[in-house]
Amino acid sequence: MEFMARLVLKFGGTSVADVSRIKNAAQKVLREHQLGHQVVVVVSAMAGVTNALVDYCRSAKSDFDWRNYDAVVASGEQVTSGLMAIALQELGLQSRSYQGWQVPIVTSAAHGKARIERIEPAKLLADMASGVIPVVAGFQGVTSEGSITTLGRGGSDTSAVALAAALNAARCDIYTDVDGVYTTDPRITDKARKLTHITCEEMLELASVGAKVLQTRSVEMAMRHHVPVQVLSSFAPEIGSELPGTMLTDEEIATVENQTVTGIAYSRDDAQITLRNVPDRPGVAAAIFGPLAEAHINVDMIVQNISADGTTDMTFTVPKADLAKSVEALETVRKDFGYDKVQTDSDVSKISVIGVGMRSHAGVAAMMFKTLFEKGINIRVISTSEIKISVAIDEKYMELAVRVLHRAFGLDQATA
Amino acid sequence: MEFMARLVLKFGGTSVADVSRIKNAAQKVLREHQLGHQVVVVVSAMAGVTNALVDYCRSAKSDFDWRNYDAVVASGEQVTSGLMAIALQELGLQSRSYQGWQVPIVTSAAHGKARIERIEPAKLLADMASGVIPVVAGFQGVTSEGSITTLGRGGSDTSAVALAAALNAARCDIYTDVDGVYTTDPRITDKARKLTHITCEEMLELASVGAKVLQTRSVEMAMRHHVPVQVLSSFAPEIGSELPGTMLTDEEIATVENQTVTGIAYSRDDAQITLRNVPDRPGVAAAIFGPLAEAHINVDMIVQNISADGTTDMTFTVPKADLAKSVEALETVRKDFGYDKVQTDSDVSKISVIGVGMRSHAGVAAMMFKTLFEKGINIRVISTSEIKISVAIDEKYMELAVRVLHRAFGLDQATA
Repeated sequence: MEFMARLVLKFGGTSVADVSRIKNAAQKVLREHQLGHQVVVVVSAMAGVTNALVDYCRSAKSDFDWRNYDAVVASGEQVTSGLMAIALQELGLQSRSYQGWQVPIVTSAAHGKARIERIEPAKLLADMASGVIPVVAGFQGVTSEGSITTLGRGGSDTSAVALAAALNAARCDIYTDVDGVYTTDPRITDKARKLTHITCEEMLELASVGAKVLQTRSVEMAMRHHVPVQVLSSFAPEIGSELPGTMLTDEEIATVENQTVTGIAYSRDDAQITLRNVPDRPGVAAAIFGPLAEAHINVDMIVQNISADGTTDMTFTVPKADLAKSVEALETVRKDFGYDKVQTDSDVSKISVIGVGMRSHAGVAAMMFKTLFEKGINIRVISTSEIKISVAIDEKYMELAVRVLHRAFGLDQATA
Repeated sequence: MEFMARLVLKFGGTSVADVSRIKNAAQKVLREHQLGHQVVVVVSAMAGVTNALVDYCRSAKSDFDWRNYDAVVASGEQVTSGLMAIALQELGLQSRSYQGWQVPIVTSAAHGKARIERIEPAKLLADMASGVIPVVAGFQGVTSEGSITTLGRGGSDTSAVALAAALNAARCDIYTDVDGVYTTDPRITDKARKLTHITCEEMLELASVGAKVLQTRSVEMAMRHHVPVQVLSSFAPEIGSELPGTMLTDEEIATVENQTVTGIAYSRDDAQITLRNVPDRPGVAAAIFGPLAEAHINVDMIVQNISADGTTDMTFTVPKADLAKSVEALETVRKDFGYDKVQTDSDVSKISVIGVGMRSHAGVAAMMFKTLFEKGINIRVISTSEIKISVAIDEKYMELAVRVLHRAFGLDQATA
């Protein structure tokens, strides 16, 4: 880019793991500054710090108070913000750290998972206009009553995108430990290819099924506010003025690449629950999933077939760690509507084929099922959305399934 | 105490070293609450945290910016405040953490060593009135422009005393790792006796010569605002309703004990500098100590004798670590006023005999010098104040000197 732009640069946990990494990240900021851009930096806590702080809270009280929890865990980003500002000064730049309450980044009062309601950009804009680089502590905000809040895990991405929207920034660069978004997990197949562009919708589907490069809420926010977001690595060498990562874009650009399927996602650690012979009458679904929601169990892949004899089978997946709690919650409502029995399987994996292009292309589902069948992989559950087809399979076939689907949909990178 | 009182309880580094210690400290708060008192808690950072944060700043930039430094190091107390509030909730109490900016505790803008200018107690008073225990992060405040500040090392004591003054508290209890103020360091002689009372002035002298139980500025503040301060251990068992520590009191109460000498203090790691044949004319002292002050060297025990032949010798002590820097600073001004030579000794120790009672008692100095002489301990330098007599001696005699003076002034505890 040759014009002067306003940029938000966000550095996550491993990019600011220790002081030497923070200094490395400061070099990226220096480079953008030298190119003439106005920069706001957003930082996460140093790697491991947030987990340690959460553990402290848990050992003080198992069901700790979220308001005081927020004061504790917000300190992690506070430390990084000050250190990053100092590291930028070491490079001869002017810099100043901001906590959420200092900007302010005003949030709801939902402690531990607050939502950003309003950002007042005046101080940051004044800093940038006078050549000062503001470093904003991510993940945190303040209620209108002056309480410290946090946005929930991964919330620093949301902070960065929200700031980019409030500042009307030309781009929000999310520096992370991967150099972009891949067609699937490179640890599963070395044929995985980095995407130059991905739509926000595809990114959301990828994120929600396990390819956790960006926090879901930050992608939603990028989509809603039309913030151009780039995911890139803080460890990759500079390669001229080319954008080195993956850009989240509007749909039109992505379909130029004309791919039917953009990527293959997977999740481990799922469990499957089947309720046999559930009476097929109104209100039953609510009676089943109400108690699960109250127990904060994240239910996924709900499948219910047409009933035959007035009863039906209902199958869904839950996180493996929540299986026992789920069955317990279901037993409490058994007497209310009745079901024959609960069947569970704790070794399930979900594989998803994702792509905006599949809306207009028939045959993706057929290709997916045929590919798995040829490898003898049994499909337990199927669920589909506009741009995604997911199946639950035996966990032991997960890696094989990802590899064969990656090849089948033409995602393997060309070998030299 | 049988009446309902408003108390400030402050817990320092080792008292909040980890979550289990924080829980132990919370028990002390619970006890005061159960006695019907209204309590505000002030906490330091967990032991070692502040040092780690300072090291981070240093490794980011050797001459780091103090404003960003303050954001980094203030996070230490922030963590403890939230954890203490959670620990109090675990005991069934209502509690809420406050950062300096939330109270607010308004300070000067001298980052890294700010002074408290104003505390607005309204929120804390409202909490207490409704049965909520506020936990305030010590050591930190906020400027009127909204920047985070810290008060300098040990500043949590100052926070506690200032809050006690602002809240018109009946007492400020400083929980630490010692169970009170002793007549001398118990590690030097097992005859050291815990004082039930000590005057603020004596405490100041003890603190400034090495018996660092309370931060100097907090004692000054206690004296100015007539805040009753108790120093006590967070590890000692409860002993009924008796005050278990040492009370800082007004002079009248202390002299009831009718002690001439209250305690013996010492400092290690001093060095002695003597300038030979300094011209005895106006402005010379300023010319010598100006450059030392500019180099931030803490000069102590300045002694100058009447001149004989138009020149004089000037002797003073500095911290051993600053000896080389001091000599360097002195060399820069040598040409301006001239002196024959600099003599240094890096193995000096300062012993001080302290007591409000010595104002009205002759013979304390004579007793001190005689006692040291009888043990063959040579006195290098003598300096005196209203309530203190200090001597510099060879470091190797330090422990012996403390022990014999402790006995000579009747401070040894009775042996059974």
